[in-house]
Amino acid sequence: MKNIAVRKIARADAGVIDGLANCGVATVHEAQGRTGLLKPYMRPIYPGASIAGSAVTVLAHPGDNWMLHVAMELCEPGDILLVGLSADNTNGMFGDLLATSARARGVRGLVIDAGVRDVADLTAMQFPVWSRAVSAEGTVKATPGCVNVPVVCAGCLVNPGDVVVAGDDGVCIVPREMAARALEKSNTRVAQEEITRQRLAAGEAGLDIYNMREKLAAAGMEYVD
Amino acid sequence: MKNIAVRKIARADAGVIDGLANCGVATVHEAQGRTGLLKPYMRPIYPGASIAGSAVTVLAHPGDNWMLHVAMELCEPGDILLVGLSADNTNGMFGDLLATSARARGVRGLVIDAGVRDVADLTAMQFPVWSRAVSAEGTVKATPGCVNVPVVCAGCLVNPGDVVVAGDDGVCIVPREMAARALEKSNTRVAQEEITRQRLAAGEAGLDIYNMREKLAAAGMEYVD
Amino acid sequence: MKNIAVRKIARADAGVIDGLANCGVATVHEAQGRTGLLKPYMRPIYPGASIAGSAVTVLAHPGDNWMLHVAMELCEPGDILLVGLSADNTNGMFGDLLATSARARGVRGLVIDAGVRDVADLTAMQFPVWSRAVSAEGTVKATPGCVNVPVVCAGCLVNPGDVVVAGDDGVCIVPREMAARALEKSNTRVAQEEITRQRLAAGEAGLDIYNMREKLAAAGMEYVD
Amino acid sequence: MKNIAVRKIARADAGVIDGLANCGVATVHEAQGRTGLLKPYMRPIYPGASIAGSAVTVLAHPGDNWMLHVAMELCEPGDILLVGLSADNTNGMFGDLLATSARARGVRGLVIDAGVRDVADLTAMQFPVWSRAVSAEGTVKATPGCVNVPVVCAGCLVNPGDVVVAGDDGVCIVPREMAARALEKSNTRVAQEEITRQRLAAGEAGLDIYNMREKLAAAGMEYVD
Amino acid sequence: MKNIAVRKIARADAGVIDGLANCGVATVHEAQGRTGLLKPYMRPIYPGASIAGSAVTVLAHPGDNWMLHVAMELCEPGDILLVGLSADNTNGMFGDLLATSARARGVRGLVIDAGVRDVADLTAMQFPVWSRAVSAEGTVKATPGCVNVPVVCAGCLVNPGDVVVAGDDGVCIVPREMAARALEKSNTRVAQEEITRQRLAAGEAGLDIYNMREKLAAAGMEYVD
Amino acid sequence: MKNIAVRKIARADAGVIDGLANCGVATVHEAQGRTGLLKPYMRPIYPGASIAGSAVTVLAHPGDNWMLHVAMELCEPGDILLVGLSADNTNGMFGDLLATSARARGVRGLVIDAGVRDVADLTAMQFPVWSRAVSAEGTVKATPGCVNVPVVCAGCLVNPGDVVVAGDDGVCIVPREMAARALEKSNTRVAQEEITRQRLAAGEAGLDIYNMREKLAAAGMEYVD
Repeated sequence: MKNIAVRKIARADAGVIDGLANCGVATVHEAQGRTGLLKPYMRPIYPGASIAGSAVTVLAHPGDNWMLHVAMELCEPGDILLVGLSADNTNGMFGDLLATSARARGVRGLVIDAGVRDVADLTAMQFPVWSRAVSAEGTVKATPGCVNVPVVCAGCLVNPGDVVVAGDDGVCIVPREMAARALEKSNTRVAQEEITRQRLAAGEAGLDIYNMREKLAAAGMEYVD
Repeated sequence: MKNIAVRKIARADAGVIDGLANCGVATVHEAQGRTGLLKPYMRPIYPGASIAGSAVTVLAHPGDNWMLHVAMELCEPGDILLVGLSADNTNGMFGDLLATSARARGVRGLVIDAGVRDVADLTAMQFPVWSRAVSAEGTVKATPGCVNVPVVCAGCLVNPGDVVVAGDDGVCIVPREMAARALEKSNTRVAQEEITRQRLAAGEAGLDIYNMREKLAAAGMEYVD
Repeated sequence: MKNIAVRKIARADAGVIDGLANCGVATVHEAQGRTGLLKPYMRPIYPGASIAGSAVTVLAHPGDNWMLHVAMELCEPGDILLVGLSADNTNGMFGDLLATSARARGVRGLVIDAGVRDVADLTAMQFPVWSRAVSAEGTVKATPGCVNVPVVCAGCLVNPGDVVVAGDDGVCIVPREMAARALEKSNTRVAQEEITRQRLAAGEAGLDIYNMREKLAAAGMEYVD
Repeated sequence: MKNIAVRKIARADAGVIDGLANCGVATVHEAQGRTGLLKPYMRPIYPGASIAGSAVTVLAHPGDNWMLHVAMELCEPGDILLVGLSADNTNGMFGDLLATSARARGVRGLVIDAGVRDVADLTAMQFPVWSRAVSAEGTVKATPGCVNVPVVCAGCLVNPGDVVVAGDDGVCIVPREMAARALEKSNTRVAQEEITRQRLAAGEAGLDIYNMREKLAAAGMEYVD
Repeated sequence: MKNIAVRKIARADAGVIDGLANCGVATVHEAQGRTGLLKPYMRPIYPGASIAGSAVTVLAHPGDNWMLHVAMELCEPGDILLVGLSADNTNGMFGDLLATSARARGVRGLVIDAGVRDVADLTAMQFPVWSRAVSAEGTVKATPGCVNVPVVCAGCLVNPGDVVVAGDDGVCIVPREMAARALEKSNTRVAQEEITRQRLAAGEAGLDIYNMREKLAAAGMEYVD
Repeated sequence: MKNIAVRKIARADAGVIDGLANCGVATVHEAQGRTGLLKPYMRPIYPGASIAGSAVTVLAHPGDNWMLHVAMELCEPGDILLVGLSADNTNGMFGDLLATSARARGVRGLVIDAGVRDVADLTAMQFPVWSRAVSAEGTVKATPGCVNVPVVCAGCLVNPGDVVVAGDDGVCIVPREMAARALEKSNTRVAQEEITRQRLAAGEAGLDIYNMREKLAAAGMEYVD
């Protein structure tokens, strides 16, 4: 593996990114054909955050956060740091100092397939993080990795510049070149769901709204009293 | 396996159900002889909810939420949807649309041995859910299962109409025909505990209140300085 | 194994203990050379608690909380109950009655490598607990264990009287005889970090502050456009 | 919970049971409509065993193997001990002494949702066990449970007298009253699979044998070069 | 997600592939810079198999093995089926019928991030499989996925035609275009290790062979008696 | 943490150690009062090995096997390398080269709370290893740890020179100064068990041999027909 840091990456349109943040993780995931979700062990450190941004990708090694410092300098306002690991690890690779640096650069949040620490401070700063663990376990700065190369994070391939959408439901990746199309489909979906929501709220049965009764019977479903 | 949906189920007395909600999960579990708990991986999506209701049971397949739509129509006010899976799964089978439908029908909450999504919306609606995961991963509607048959959920057998008691400590099942007796014993327990609580708050030692000193010595416990 | 309860243990200086609480888990862990952390599966039952105290150690058996009652009587104000198990277990060994007793004796919190219950009550009381699970599953009082002997808790050896520092990042153990030195190093670290924090907040790059550019190049890191 | 041991249980026909053993776990599971499997964490202690027998069910508590001794006496030749636990546990509840007793009574094997020990001896005796763990951790005989009541074992409800089919693929439960029908369907399936196997071995494509090409196209599958 | 099956893929040189099989997983992983390993939960169904082949990649959905039938037809002698899943799943997606088909087409083995069944038969056939679980749980053929697109399998990105090297130590992926270079480096490594092995077998200390004594002292290591 | 390697450690009597190996893990664990077991996730890489030896303890960091080289030189014939980690890790820290070195020095085996690789070679050499994972993932030699200090390994405290007993049932630690007494009690237990085994083999009920009938009745056990 060559250790490289790519300085310049293409990013999606800022308006599209913000539009995707508004639609939310579940809607975007559905709109792009049920793809792009990180595994559900990735949890937010506090509830309520809902963001989207361009992925600055990091490949790091267990117990070593050197590459997060390298990546930080390459971030632009609106980016999200997204860290994949070369092997399973829960060390706390990111804390309030790195968050201070991230905030100063306009970074919107962190998605890391490892641990995070200083979560009380990060919560007070309202700097959102999705991680596989909370752990105070410290790290060294000894083994180089990569920045802005394709990485696997929590089971999902992420390319630098892909759009990261993250909220209480988890994290979804939208490939950069599909972002505009995903937003369009997401907006359509949001509009349709609003209509369905009103019918359901009025007490109409989902089986009727979705025309499921015939299919159920065809599948052999029997009602008994 | 035949795919059936049972329309009519027997339910416990509404007053008894509300009484059990007041006693809480731990007390009810103890009162009925330390039985009926779902495994502790079942966690609430937000803290503070405390409910009880009659189980409308669902047997669903991984990645398929068809049966939840079937079950919804069979729910009555005061019911709790309780979903067992035919194999381990974390897909997000329930979200804000189904919750809207559930609320319209007076369903009090959801207990599901799989994933849930739209948790920010569900929290805003204060619609409580206990699940094994939060995941935006979508589902299909392709394979029929069953509604209102006995199911295993998080390691516990649940019959339709059993009383589900759920709170921050997890979920406990009270067999329908034992509900009144369980409430009676729970109330007794609550009263006794109140007395003990006051003695403990006053600084009295548990070893004295519970008469444990002699038993400890008999078991070979030695005190050293 | 002999079943003993040691009545008198040495404790660290109260001012040192409170100083360590102020520094927090991550700082103390770093200051004492990246040691002493319990595994990250140990989580607080509510966010925001940050405490330190002297460990009253308990060795308990799965499903049996007898020794917690024995230990309670041996606690002094400022202590923290720390419970190791002889085998993996998630039963809810501690609830609101034991917490009432603990509060009456000035115990600051509980760290338990098993389950806890009545977490809504404990949260209302603001009695902090770090545990591996929340579970209403009850316990018996049948098999004696030990109090105030060295125990392994969540992968870490703890001696009675060691200082327990616990917060949102997890739990860190400071050996009693090293507590003063650990506080000194922690305070130095806090002061240094404050300076770094201000430089980072002003937008200076971590790579410059930590003089990493030369080391990166030496390690073979290449920048590409 | 009342602590009872039921002495007399109904069993399936011996010839049917042996027929199910010949068909194997996967075939029987499919033949009865894809139901009845224990979770895949249940693994055999050595490869190659393939048995079926009538379930003598046990409900035991963590760290306590008392009920296994009670159940042993109620076993008849051809039975399989099947043990569910009241909470997750990995203690080694069964070893070479209990296996010696089991062998003397004609018991064919053990299925236990906990640990087992003396596995070198059990392998030498060729006494097959399916368990969730191998552990030397010992047990007490202090808390009564039940024998020959319905139990949940590894996520599956088992009634006393149900047929247990176990092999390298895991464990499948056939409800006693459905055993003859399940054997019939299993035998049909075995015969059909033999024909398919020969066609596949001759190089014919599964897509042709199963007539899948049209359905694939209808589902939107596209072939690209 | 579009559902496509790519018929023609580029493969590495057959001699290179067989050379990599001879070097083994650990050597190849080291030789290509410590990359390419699947997570260690991927285990062989029997010990002793050691193979390499070209990846025919499959993206499948939980509980659905339809795409394995599609992929089978596109395999050539020397290939290895490699299956990634859209969400965590342990269903037994592959058994003796599919293995019979695979054998007839010269497929060397299967790597699947889900379950496998009929493992006794597969062992008798000596058809090697690396999987995350053994489970008899059956599957449907309802939702299309993809064949021969890039997939993530057990945390690793795999492109169609990449070389899969698998043995008792797990599974390693060599990007197709790097296969020749990886073999060259692997062979060098094997030769060097043979020399080291002989020195170690003769009792020489690793600290001397690897010249570690000075570095240890520089790192602050102290020897005490 | 100071980084030290202690050259000279006290060891138990060689005859006692071999005697403990003969008794086996489960018997020794019981004989010393049900203590000393490592967690059951520690599994042997091949079945059938049964050894005992003096612990040369290692504290290593995730992804770093430097200390294993340091420890190797301090081993004497009859020793067992026992490695604890500062944080959870599954990297393959030990392979056939280290095993060659270990064999040359008379080391009897390895117990490591991390991963191991080259397991096919180690099996061919019959060099036994108990580990938490098999993984080819390589390691660096960058961060010093300790040799021959007390370590926590798989949840158990181990002092240098303690006796490690390991077999198919797992790993048990006997404190050095208690080794002779533990052997004595183990031998007594083996003799007693032989008598019980013969009675059980003759068909006598365990309930009679252990005089359990009265206690069962006292505990409220009821027999039903």
